[in-house]
Amino acid sequence: MHIKATIITIGDELLIGQVIDTNSAWIAKEIAKAGIKIQKRVSVGDTWNDIWRTLDEESKNAEIILITGGLGPTADDITKPLLCEYFGGKLVTDERALENIINIFTNHLKKPLIERNLKQAEVPNVCTVIPNSCGTAPGMWFEKDNTVYVSMPGVPFEMQAMMQHTVIPKIHEKYSLPPIIYKTLLVYGIGESFLAERLINFEKNLPEYIKLAYLPNFGLLRLRLTMQPEHLPDGVHIQTEMEQQFLLLQTEVQEYFVIDKDLTMQEVVGNMLQENGKTLSTAESCTGGYIAHLISSVPGASAYYLGSIVAYDNSVKENQLHVKNETLEKFGAVSKETVEEMVAGALESMQTDYALAVSGILGPDGGTTEKPVGLVWIAVGNKAHIVAKKFNFRFDRHRNMQITAMNALNLLRLFIKENNS
Amino acid sequence: MHIKATIITIGDELLIGQVIDTNSAWIAKEIAKAGIKIQKRVSVGDTWNDIWRTLDEESKNAEIILITGGLGPTADDITKPLLCEYFGGKLVTDERALENIINIFTNHLKKPLIERNLKQAEVPNVCTVIPNSCGTAPGMWFEKDNTVYVSMPGVPFEMQAMMQHTVIPKIHEKYSLPPIIYKTLLVYGIGESFLAERLINFEKNLPEYIKLAYLPNFGLLRLRLTMQPEHLPDGVHIQTEMEQQFLLLQTEVQEYFVIDKDLTMQEVVGNMLQENGKTLSTAESCTGGYIAHLISSVPGASAYYLGSIVAYDNSVKENQLHVKNETLEKFGAVSKETVEEMVAGALESMQTDYALAVSGILGPDGGTTEKPVGLVWIAVGNKAHIVAKKFNFRFDRHRNMQITAMNALNLLRLFIKENNS
Repeated sequence: MHIKATIITIGDELLIGQVIDTNSAWIAKEIAKAGIKIQKRVSVGDTWNDIWRTLDEESKNAEIILITGGLGPTADDITKPLLCEYFGGKLVTDERALENIINIFTNHLKKPLIERNLKQAEVPNVCTVIPNSCGTAPGMWFEKDNTVYVSMPGVPFEMQAMMQHTVIPKIHEKYSLPPIIYKTLLVYGIGESFLAERLINFEKNLPEYIKLAYLPNFGLLRLRLTMQPEHLPDGVHIQTEMEQQFLLLQTEVQEYFVIDKDLTMQEVVGNMLQENGKTLSTAESCTGGYIAHLISSVPGASAYYLGSIVAYDNSVKENQLHVKNETLEKFGAVSKETVEEMVAGALESMQTDYALAVSGILGPDGGTTEKPVGLVWIAVGNKAHIVAKKFNFRFDRHRNMQITAMNALNLLRLFIKENNS
Repeated sequence: MHIKATIITIGDELLIGQVIDTNSAWIAKEIAKAGIKIQKRVSVGDTWNDIWRTLDEESKNAEIILITGGLGPTADDITKPLLCEYFGGKLVTDERALENIINIFTNHLKKPLIERNLKQAEVPNVCTVIPNSCGTAPGMWFEKDNTVYVSMPGVPFEMQAMMQHTVIPKIHEKYSLPPIIYKTLLVYGIGESFLAERLINFEKNLPEYIKLAYLPNFGLLRLRLTMQPEHLPDGVHIQTEMEQQFLLLQTEVQEYFVIDKDLTMQEVVGNMLQENGKTLSTAESCTGGYIAHLISSVPGASAYYLGSIVAYDNSVKENQLHVKNETLEKFGAVSKETVEEMVAGALESMQTDYALAVSGILGPDGGTTEKPVGLVWIAVGNKAHIVAKKFNFRFDRHRNMQITAMNALNLLRLFIKENNS
């Protein structure tokens, strides 16, 4: 059975752009593991007619409707009364939800309860209540005409806990689902169009039930093979076929191949360091701590990452990283000489096996004719030697920061690969 | 005239959750300034029938359909041929787009052009071409039955440049639009439900054509008044009325009031430092550079932010921040004593007026009975004195990091406010 799902996100804040919708991507990823494909996502505002009409329309095309948002304690939330009317129920207090709210206020927030909070325990009497282990608003599971409707709060970690603890297990109970199989590999250093050219024949020869997708991200390109359950003929052993196509794909891209898993570049580098029992420090100027943030976002990074000196100002480069004043005077803060001394300084100050350093001009201001916005020097090294590379990026501040970080992590990856002994 | 717009994003990568849709939020914000309200957002995959049906459905409810994605050079992109058929045209090469592609490959990428790239210059002969100043795929502007359809690439900075340089000016040419007026203020330190309770009467007394919305973000709460053009009666001077309601709102929340602008906490703090001509350094343990990243993300931060020592490992706390070994031994890395010494160390090492330090256990591992996951110490100070505060957060690693950063920036804000002399 091939089950389709639609995500509906509710809230004016999504439509006016003050909040970026991260819930949809999370839900799509999680539910794909259960073998369910999101075929559409819709966002509507806190407007009765728009929500009602969207429920009507989307229920025609999907067996599961996952709804987030619109359950907060403030006055602009109309989702719960609407759902109550839509499914023909009336609001009643759920005892478990009430207990949960009282517990959160008494033991965690240590604040008095007000009427508005107690009202969050009210649910339509025609739903199955989904407990909220992380917050006050309960979720709701409705069924009508063979369609399942799940309403959850928009707060990401509350929604995530509900999905993991209740919604996905309940979906597995209700439907018998084959998992959707997909495999991802990473390549670096080749553009999307050149790779597509190279893979023309590979794509032509793919069976209809396996699809190739390109997902570029600042130079790192993810290639993903995904099983298309609607095209899968009986008798095909999809696991075996997928493995074979995946190996073929790997061969086709071998010079650019990074890893045969869906990881971030900081995870790839982190794994290499951890496996080799090596340590890393960083020294950042223009990226201002962003690379440190990426590296330390990986759980367990403290095993190999000792720290960073964010030398935004030249005085910090001199005092903490021992970059020579004459180097800064003669070559400038954005130069091969400075980033090399930053690496040497980080290795010495933080006593690590490897160090990575960046200095550049990300914009919008600070560029000159000789050193324009987008000029970035990156260096990486160990006690034996240091290599440096110059880049010219042509984007805005934010994007220049991201592409600098990606290139820095990739240089580090290549350096570790070549110098690991 | 009240114009409604719908955003359609196209791409399997959005539906399977490998990419977070940041374009929609950006578009919604920009187009709101032009007086246009996004009433719905829809995401569909790279599937002919789904895209076609969505175009049909959404054109019934909106005057402007903004489409992003599906224009890349790889094989899974079917958007351009579909639009060509939908609007009854044929593909022809656009000379300006071709010139742009040749220029990018010759002068920037310095790579040979392949057939696939040249094909990107093809557009339906029934559209107005939107030049792409940042990439190869041109945008397209169609009109049919009084509805405008704009198709743009999914790459954020390419789409953004098209919107700013071409799409928004063309919309202003076509429609005469009153700007949608909204005003935002920030409060800190009060929960959404408590604030809503306090504002019951304020909300009751708001005219129908002004709406209040709550936008919580890790303790920082944005309150936004937005004009509802569909309810605005003739003869009301909306600017004056909005100003009056906004002042009233400010009075209602005064103990928690941060600022009467829509800024991030790092912008608020940055402005305070810049106005007072003071400098800042940071010392981060558990947040691993995230606070440095937030502060340095603000353009112009180099005027007041000198740098950070990311002391992920205790050795870095000792060597770079001069935290005493006996302090770490006796009280541990996550303690009042350690963060206070980190502040003193940062002030001394980086010679700044203020310093901020954090140390904590964000999880998932590393907690003990005495010092559980979520325990965080934050300290802030100047040469005269240092204050420290303990927090117990109860979320996952990612959220604990964000809420730690927000609380740290808020403590810094309060410290500057009280100690500015």
